[in-house]
Amino acid sequence: MSIAALTGVIPPVCTPLTPDFEVDTRSLTRLVDHQLRGGVDALFVLGSSSEVAFLPDAHRRIVLDTVIGHVAGQVPVLAGVIDMTTLRVLDHARVAAEAGAAGLVATAPFYARTHPVEIDTHFRAIAERTGLPLYAYDLPVSVHTKLGAELVLGLAADGVLAGIKDSSGDDAGLRGLILGRRDRAEITGFSVLTGSELTVDSALWMGADGVVPGLGNVDPDGYVRLYQAAAKGDWVAARTEQERLLRMFELVFVGAHRMGMSSSPLGAFKAALHLRGIIDHPTTALPQVPLNSDETAQIGRYLADAGLL
Amino acid sequence: MSIAALTGVIPPVCTPLTPDFEVDTRSLTRLVDHQLRGGVDALFVLGSSSEVAFLPDAHRRIVLDTVIGHVAGQVPVLAGVIDMTTLRVLDHARVAAEAGAAGLVATAPFYARTHPVEIDTHFRAIAERTGLPLYAYDLPVSVHTKLGAELVLGLAADGVLAGIKDSSGDDAGLRGLILGRRDRAEITGFSVLTGSELTVDSALWMGADGVVPGLGNVDPDGYVRLYQAAAKGDWVAARTEQERLLRMFELVFVGAHRMGMSSSPLGAFKAALHLRGIIDHPTTALPQVPLNSDETAQIGRYLADAGLL
Amino acid sequence: MSIAALTGVIPPVCTPLTPDFEVDTRSLTRLVDHQLRGGVDALFVLGSSSEVAFLPDAHRRIVLDTVIGHVAGQVPVLAGVIDMTTLRVLDHARVAAEAGAAGLVATAPFYARTHPVEIDTHFRAIAERTGLPLYAYDLPVSVHTKLGAELVLGLAADGVLAGIKDSSGDDAGLRGLILGRRDRAEITGFSVLTGSELTVDSALWMGADGVVPGLGNVDPDGYVRLYQAAAKGDWVAARTEQERLLRMFELVFVGAHRMGMSSSPLGAFKAALHLRGIIDHPTTALPQVPLNSDETAQIGRYLADAGLL
Amino acid sequence: MSIAALTGVIPPVCTPLTPDFEVDTRSLTRLVDHQLRGGVDALFVLGSSSEVAFLPDAHRRIVLDTVIGHVAGQVPVLAGVIDMTTLRVLDHARVAAEAGAAGLVATAPFYARTHPVEIDTHFRAIAERTGLPLYAYDLPVSVHTKLGAELVLGLAADGVLAGIKDSSGDDAGLRGLILGRRDRAEITGFSVLTGSELTVDSALWMGADGVVPGLGNVDPDGYVRLYQAAAKGDWVAARTEQERLLRMFELVFVGAHRMGMSSSPLGAFKAALHLRGIIDHPTTALPQVPLNSDETAQIGRYLADAGLL
Repeated sequence: MSIAALTGVIPPVCTPLTPDFEVDTRSLTRLVDHQLRGGVDALFVLGSSSEVAFLPDAHRRIVLDTVIGHVAGQVPVLAGVIDMTTLRVLDHARVAAEAGAAGLVATAPFYARTHPVEIDTHFRAIAERTGLPLYAYDLPVSVHTKLGAELVLGLAADGVLAGIKDSSGDDAGLRGLILGRRDRAEITGFSVLTGSELTVDSALWMGADGVVPGLGNVDPDGYVRLYQAAAKGDWVAARTEQERLLRMFELVFVGAHRMGMSSSPLGAFKAALHLRGIIDHPTTALPQVPLNSDETAQIGRYLADAGLL
Repeated sequence: MSIAALTGVIPPVCTPLTPDFEVDTRSLTRLVDHQLRGGVDALFVLGSSSEVAFLPDAHRRIVLDTVIGHVAGQVPVLAGVIDMTTLRVLDHARVAAEAGAAGLVATAPFYARTHPVEIDTHFRAIAERTGLPLYAYDLPVSVHTKLGAELVLGLAADGVLAGIKDSSGDDAGLRGLILGRRDRAEITGFSVLTGSELTVDSALWMGADGVVPGLGNVDPDGYVRLYQAAAKGDWVAARTEQERLLRMFELVFVGAHRMGMSSSPLGAFKAALHLRGIIDHPTTALPQVPLNSDETAQIGRYLADAGLL
Repeated sequence: MSIAALTGVIPPVCTPLTPDFEVDTRSLTRLVDHQLRGGVDALFVLGSSSEVAFLPDAHRRIVLDTVIGHVAGQVPVLAGVIDMTTLRVLDHARVAAEAGAAGLVATAPFYARTHPVEIDTHFRAIAERTGLPLYAYDLPVSVHTKLGAELVLGLAADGVLAGIKDSSGDDAGLRGLILGRRDRAEITGFSVLTGSELTVDSALWMGADGVVPGLGNVDPDGYVRLYQAAAKGDWVAARTEQERLLRMFELVFVGAHRMGMSSSPLGAFKAALHLRGIIDHPTTALPQVPLNSDETAQIGRYLADAGLL
Repeated sequence: MSIAALTGVIPPVCTPLTPDFEVDTRSLTRLVDHQLRGGVDALFVLGSSSEVAFLPDAHRRIVLDTVIGHVAGQVPVLAGVIDMTTLRVLDHARVAAEAGAAGLVATAPFYARTHPVEIDTHFRAIAERTGLPLYAYDLPVSVHTKLGAELVLGLAADGVLAGIKDSSGDDAGLRGLILGRRDRAEITGFSVLTGSELTVDSALWMGADGVVPGLGNVDPDGYVRLYQAAAKGDWVAARTEQERLLRMFELVFVGAHRMGMSSSPLGAFKAALHLRGIIDHPTTALPQVPLNSDETAQIGRYLADAGLL
C-alpha cells in the first residue's frame, strides 16, 4: 500500500488496557472501528497518545497485530518505533515491518545526548535498513531536542524521510518546513503533518497535509469535518470546528494539578472513550495516576458540552 | 550474595562492540578482568557508560550472561534496567534476575512526563515485583527530572530502595541524602553512591559509601587507590589521586566540539581501553560519531600523562 | 489618546546607535518616519528588538523623548518597562508616563525565581501604581517563564491588563487566549497581539488584533499590506505576503553560527536598515558581536530578493 | 584597600526593608555589625541574597553608602552590579566605585541571549572601564547560562577577573577552576569562592579560598568557625559545623510550596534575622509572597534547634 502522499486525519490510536495492564484487544478493535467510521485517512499506532512509552514489547506486538489485522488494508497503519537510539529502534522496525505496517514513525534519540550530525545518522540508518516509508516525529517535550528545519529538509531532499509529524507546537517552524519543501525542487513525496491539535485549520491553511490529533481518539468525526471543510476551502467552517475542539481539549487538564502531563491527557482520553462506551476500562499503564470519580465526572461534562454524550 | 552494604568502587562497565555492532564478549571479559585485577568492589553493567541506551535487548542479555558468568560470584554484579516506564523496566528486571544479577539499577521514568507521585509509584512497583535490591539512578541530564531528597529518603525508609547512584552533580543534594539517612533511624541498609567521578574524595568525606566512576573503566586502580586511601583516613593521598584523575578526565571532551555529550566520553573511554590493549575495537554504537585518528592520538597523550601508557 | 482597542501593526522600534554607543536620534526619527510612512498603527519603543536589555536608563529616556516628541500624537507610542522585578519596573513606568507614553509593556519578573502568584501580584502592582494601560509581554526565551492562560485571562477580567504581546511562539496558547477572551463576558478592551512574525496571517485568522513584528523595522509596508489584506478578508493575499516575509526573515540567522540569538537578528535588522539608507550606523550595543562585511553582503541579498534594495 | 587575595567568609548582606519597601538603614547597620562581630572577612552587598533584583537604583545607592560608610574600611565591601548587559552594568559600576566599593561582582548577561564570545567581551569591557577588581558571579538558576572553565580561566589569565563566586552548585566544575588556576602559571591573584553554602568544607578542602553564604546572614559565626577550623586543618570540626548548618538550611524551604524559590529563602533569612532581633521587619520586596505566622514559627524552631534562639 503506497502512502507516498499521506494526507488527512491520522489519529494516534489509544491503547485500551485491562485493569491488570494487558492490551484489551476487543476494546482496541472497537476504537479502531470508531475511528474508521469517523472517516479517518490512516491510523498511527504506538505513538505517544498510544502510551507507547508505557508498553512492553509484547504489548506493542499485540497492538500491531490487532490493529493491522482488523483494518485489513482499509487505510494505511503507521507504526511508532519509539526507543532511545538506533539499534533499539531497528528492532521495533523489524517487528512493525513483519506485522505489515505501512510506514514507521521515529523520534530523534533520547536519554542519550546527541549532536545534530548523530540525529541525521540515526534517521539515515533507520531508512537504509528498513524498506518502509519513514516519518520523523518531532516532540521536544519528550525527546528534549527540536528537529531543525535544515536537518529535516536535508533528509527529505535525500529521500530518507517520507514526512514529519511535528508536535513541537512551533507553527512558525512548521511553516518553514512547508515553504522549504515547496522551494526545493528535489523534495518530492514529503508529507508535513501537524501534531498540534488546536491549530489544525491554520496549519492546513499554511499548506500542511494532515493532522495527527490525540483528541481524534475521542472525536474523530470532528477532525474529519475540520479537514474536509478545509479541503473544500470552507475555512470558516474549519475554524468553527477547530474552536469547538479547542474548548473540548480543556479536558486534558482535569487531572493536571495532581499528576504528570502524560497521565492527565492520556487518562482524560481514556475516560472519555469509556464514558462514550467505546472501551471497557479507562485504565492507564503504570505508574500513571488514574483519574478519580470527580475528575471523570468533569470529563463527562466536557463531552456533554461538546455534544458527544 | 547479600549486598546490603554496598560500598567502594563499582565501575559502570563499558560494553565493547565489534565493528558491526555486536557485543565483543572476549573484550568484555578482558575488561572485567582488568577491573577485578584493579580491586573493584562490585560491577555495574548496563549503565549509561555501558551504552545501555544504545543496546538492543539481545545485546543486554549477552552482557548480563557474559559478565555474571565470568565474574562467577567474585563480586556482586548490579544490572541497569534502563527504560522509559514501569512495565518496560519490569521486563528488563526479569531478565536480569534470571541472569543472576545481585541488584537492579533504575531511573525515574523518562520520555513520559511524570509527577513525583508517579516516580514514587514507579520505584515501589519495581521493588514489589522483583526480589532484588533496587538502586535509584539519578541522572537528570538524561532523565530530565531530579530525584528529590524527600522522595528518595521516603523510599529508603520504606525499604523500597537499597541505595542510590547519584549522578546529578549536585553534591549539596548528595550531602542532604547522607545526613537525612543518618537522621532517620528507620533507614537501614541504604547505600549512597556518587556517580560524580571528580569529587569522590569529598563525597566519601561527607559520608558516601562508594563511587560508580565511568573513568574507572580506564583506570580502576586509580579509583581503588583513592577509595582505600579515604578508607584509611589518608585524605591527602585521596585528594592527590582525585586530582590526577580529574586531569585525566579531560579526555572526555576531546570530541565534544563535533559530537554529542554521550559519544564524546563513551568514545574516549573506549579509545583509551583500546590503546591500553584491553578491548579489541573502540567502536561505539550507532548513531554515535566515532573519534578520528587525531582525537585518538590526543586520548593517548592523556593516558601517557597519567602514566597509563 | 485612548488605545482601548489596540489593533494593527505595531513595530518594536529598533534603537539606532552611534559607533560609540550613544542613541543616534537623527537616525531614530528617520526610522520612525519610515514606519509611519509604511502606515503602522502604533509604535512600541524599548522592546526586545529595541535592544532594551542593552540600553542604560539615560538612553531609554532619550528614546522615549525622541520618539514620542517626533510622533506628536499621530499614533500611540507604547513603552517597554523591562526590568527584573516590580519596584524597578515602576521606576521605568514613571519615566515613561512623564514622557507621554500611551501604554506600558512589562514582562513577568526575571532573574528572580517567582511563583505564578507573584507574577500576578507583579502585574497588579504595576497597574495600580500607574495610570496607563498595561500590556503583558510573554517572551519565555528571555524571561524563562511562560504566562499561563488562566493567569492572563484573570488579569484581563479584572481590568489589570489591557492586552498581551505574545512572543512565546505558542500559537495554540495564543488561540486559547483569543477564545478565552471571547467566552468570558467580563473581559472587555483586551488586545491580543502576536509577536510571532511568521504566523501573522493565521494569528489574525484566529482572532488576534494585531502584530508586533521585529522584521517590521525593515519592511513595515509588508506587514501593513498583510494586515490590511486580512482586514478586508483577502486571506490569500495575506498569506502570500506572509510567505514573502518568512523567506526574508531568514536574514536573522546570517550571523547565528558565531554570535548569540540576540545579536544575530538585531544586527541583521540594523544592517538592513543601514543598507536601505534609513539609519546611519549598523552599530549594536555591547557586548554584541557585530556582523562582518560578508554577513552584511548576505543581508543585502535577502533585501534584494525581497525587492527592498 | 587591596583585595588581591580575597579569602574567608564573605556574606551576601540581606537588605532590610521597611513595611513600605524603603531601605531600613538602621536595621542594615545592625546586620552589618552582627556580621562583623561574627568575624567575617569581607562583605558582599547587592547580591542575590540582598534582593538586588528587587531593588531600584536609589535603594542600591543607599545600601552602598550605608554599608561602606558604616564599615569604614574594617573589611572590604564588594558590590554587586547585577543587570542585563554591559552598558547597564557599567552604570552600576560607576556608582559603586564612587561609593567606595573594594570590588565589583557581575554576572554574564541575561534576558539577552548571548554567545560565549559575548560573555567574554562583557567581562573585558567592564574590567577595562572600571578600575576595580572584578569578580564573575556564576548563578545559572538566575542567569540561565553556566560560565565555562575555559572562559573563566582565560579571563583570569589575562587579569580581567580577580575571582569568581561560583553559585552553580557544580562542585566538579569548581574543582576544575581550582586545579586550572594551579596549573596555569600565568594566573595570579585569582580567588575562587563558593556560593554553595552546604559544601563549604569540601570546597575549602579542594582549594577554594572562601565562601559567600546566604545563610551567613543568619549565622555568620557558624561559617567563621567552619572556615577557621578548615584553615587550622581541623577538618572534622569543619565538617561537624557544616552539617549543623546544612540542617538549619532546611528553613529556606518552609514557604516553598506556595511561593517562588527567591521569596522562600529570602523570606526565611529575613524572618530569622527578625526573630533574632537583628532587623526590625521581615519585609521582602514586591512581588514576593511574605511568610505567614505558621511559617515564621517553623523558622523559629529551626533557629532553636540550631541554638540560635
